[in-house]
Amino acid sequence: MEAARQAEDAGRHIIHMEVGQPSTGAPQAARQALSDALETDAMGYTVALGLPALRRRIAQHYGDWYNVDLNPERVVITPGSSGAFILSFTALFDSGDRVGIGAPGYPSYRQILHALGMQPVDIETAPENRLQPVAADLRGLDLAGLMVASPANPTGTMLDRTALATLMEAAQAEGASFISDEIYHGLEYEAKAVTALEISDEAYVINSFSKYFSMTGWRVGWMIVPEDHIRTVERIAQNMFICAPHASQVAALAAMECTTELEANLAVYARNRQLMLDGLPRAGFTKIAPPDGAFYVYADVSDLTTDSRALAAEILQQAGVAVTPGLDFDPQRGATTLRFSYARATSDIEEGLRRLEIFMRGRL
Amino acid sequence: MEAARQAEDAGRHIIHMEVGQPSTGAPQAARQALSDALETDAMGYTVALGLPALRRRIAQHYGDWYNVDLNPERVVITPGSSGAFILSFTALFDSGDRVGIGAPGYPSYRQILHALGMQPVDIETAPENRLQPVAADLRGLDLAGLMVASPANPTGTMLDRTALATLMEAAQAEGASFISDEIYHGLEYEAKAVTALEISDEAYVINSFSKYFSMTGWRVGWMIVPEDHIRTVERIAQNMFICAPHASQVAALAAMECTTELEANLAVYARNRQLMLDGLPRAGFTKIAPPDGAFYVYADVSDLTTDSRALAAEILQQAGVAVTPGLDFDPQRGATTLRFSYARATSDIEEGLRRLEIFMRGRL
Repeated sequence: MEAARQAEDAGRHIIHMEVGQPSTGAPQAARQALSDALETDAMGYTVALGLPALRRRIAQHYGDWYNVDLNPERVVITPGSSGAFILSFTALFDSGDRVGIGAPGYPSYRQILHALGMQPVDIETAPENRLQPVAADLRGLDLAGLMVASPANPTGTMLDRTALATLMEAAQAEGASFISDEIYHGLEYEAKAVTALEISDEAYVINSFSKYFSMTGWRVGWMIVPEDHIRTVERIAQNMFICAPHASQVAALAAMECTTELEANLAVYARNRQLMLDGLPRAGFTKIAPPDGAFYVYADVSDLTTDSRALAAEILQQAGVAVTPGLDFDPQRGATTLRFSYARATSDIEEGLRRLEIFMRGRL
Repeated sequence: MEAARQAEDAGRHIIHMEVGQPSTGAPQAARQALSDALETDAMGYTVALGLPALRRRIAQHYGDWYNVDLNPERVVITPGSSGAFILSFTALFDSGDRVGIGAPGYPSYRQILHALGMQPVDIETAPENRLQPVAADLRGLDLAGLMVASPANPTGTMLDRTALATLMEAAQAEGASFISDEIYHGLEYEAKAVTALEISDEAYVINSFSKYFSMTGWRVGWMIVPEDHIRTVERIAQNMFICAPHASQVAALAAMECTTELEANLAVYARNRQLMLDGLPRAGFTKIAPPDGAFYVYADVSDLTTDSRALAAEILQQAGVAVTPGLDFDPQRGATTLRFSYARATSDIEEGLRRLEIFMRGRL
């Protein structure tokens, strides 16, 4: 990202396939709802668990999307999924506890666990398992917790219902608390993403308004916790955060009614994804993880390099396309992988793919 | 607070002297700036350290208010002072480290340190030291850090320049990192509050837009760190928070130009404080900490009770005034103290004092 910024500062035109956020803003009606509320509402602290109307609306969302009947008391509004990670880790784990995370995976899991004095344990996932952990991976790891993401970052792959259920049972058998990061739910293209709550109430489920609802900078997300954890989580949230940003909660509540605009955003991702699935192999990136959801394609480039950072730098330098080397996501094997994001406008994706094809033609 | 809410739900009229936040909202021009920005700005993630314009403006603020020349690179925008506590503790301390906090003090210091696996060490402060820690208190405590607040919550007392400098030197001599919570700066009535940066660059200074700038629910604050800590803090902030809420940063920047409105708020607090200083002793609350700043009066009620929780319940029940028992702030001695807040409207303060006087007359 920093290298891309420097190239732009130097006057170059860069296509951003490294970004992890939508380029669209909050839905129009969400911004309007906030503008209106600013006239009349002092926007003081909300209660620690969040605006009751927002908690109720999120509970309803689980009925609408998954046919899950959810008690609104179990919904905790958090300062983004980031806040939910901090909250779930401190509620569930003690210093020194071992917490399993898939590799490749979102790098901040590892860093937050470290910062909280816990031990992240990388689980090397296999291509034949869609780069997701499976039950057999847990054996002997002595985990206090397991964190999974479906759709995942950086791979976009999902766990289907059977895979998720099997994994949750295995975690329970090992005595590991289960945390399901569902931040990319809603951004799925062929099959519907499955929430852990369809399978069991004994899980922490984390989600956010940042991706499907297109509200990254607002720092508002949510977490569903088992009923007997509500009071503990409330106490920690009160002390650590006081509350999630009030203005963001107001906007988020309105965003949940903006289906037409959000589905139009999704249609852009779907079109971009198809362009990527056609264009990347044509350019020579043929070994890609199944791109079930999110807005990423994760490519194995081991036939091109053993230094993904150098390859990314070369692509930026020669093609003017910013991509993310896999090392952040997978310290072991990321030297031979790249993540391509298709979160930007379709015209950018088309131009990026054109540049990648020319670059690769010159390189091979 | 919960008891006050229940009393109101039961139809009673309650005067709120338990609150820890202004009843005023964000300044009008801050709300307007955000409304305008909502039209044009997608409000994606900001960089982890915050909007550069806001960091520059805060650096300028140290020149304006304290005549301190501050490098804007040292300013870190945080999700409220809450985020700054998490960030400073994780940047400075390891699991198990002992961190000194004044008793009485803000209860979340203790809880956040616990949640992060660190050891809060209560320092029992003395009335003759304005209920603030002094150098001699640190001896033998084996502290990795010391956290002070001036003006303090719940007492409102301040450390003057000599007291602060002596304490900072003592902390340094003991090898303890110094964290100065300056969230109530700007809300001071007789002497000006002193920032730790007037004394040394070797401190973490925490502040927020919640109190003087009247933006509690916005969850935006800041932290000044030594130059050689910037990179570490940036990395932790990126992983733990991604960024402070973008919309709140936009509003905060505009709030810094709203001096007229903010000084009008301050004039209300000053008037309220004078009413409290006259009315509380008249009612019979005569042993109070020097109310230098913030919007609190902390009273020793040991001649009235050994159970401040019961006394607060009695005051709520009989007088319809909500006050805070001291136990949250001081686990040892808080059974004989109460905190009175004067953050609400002057008419409420007048009515509250009237009720307290009648209550005490009936009780004595």
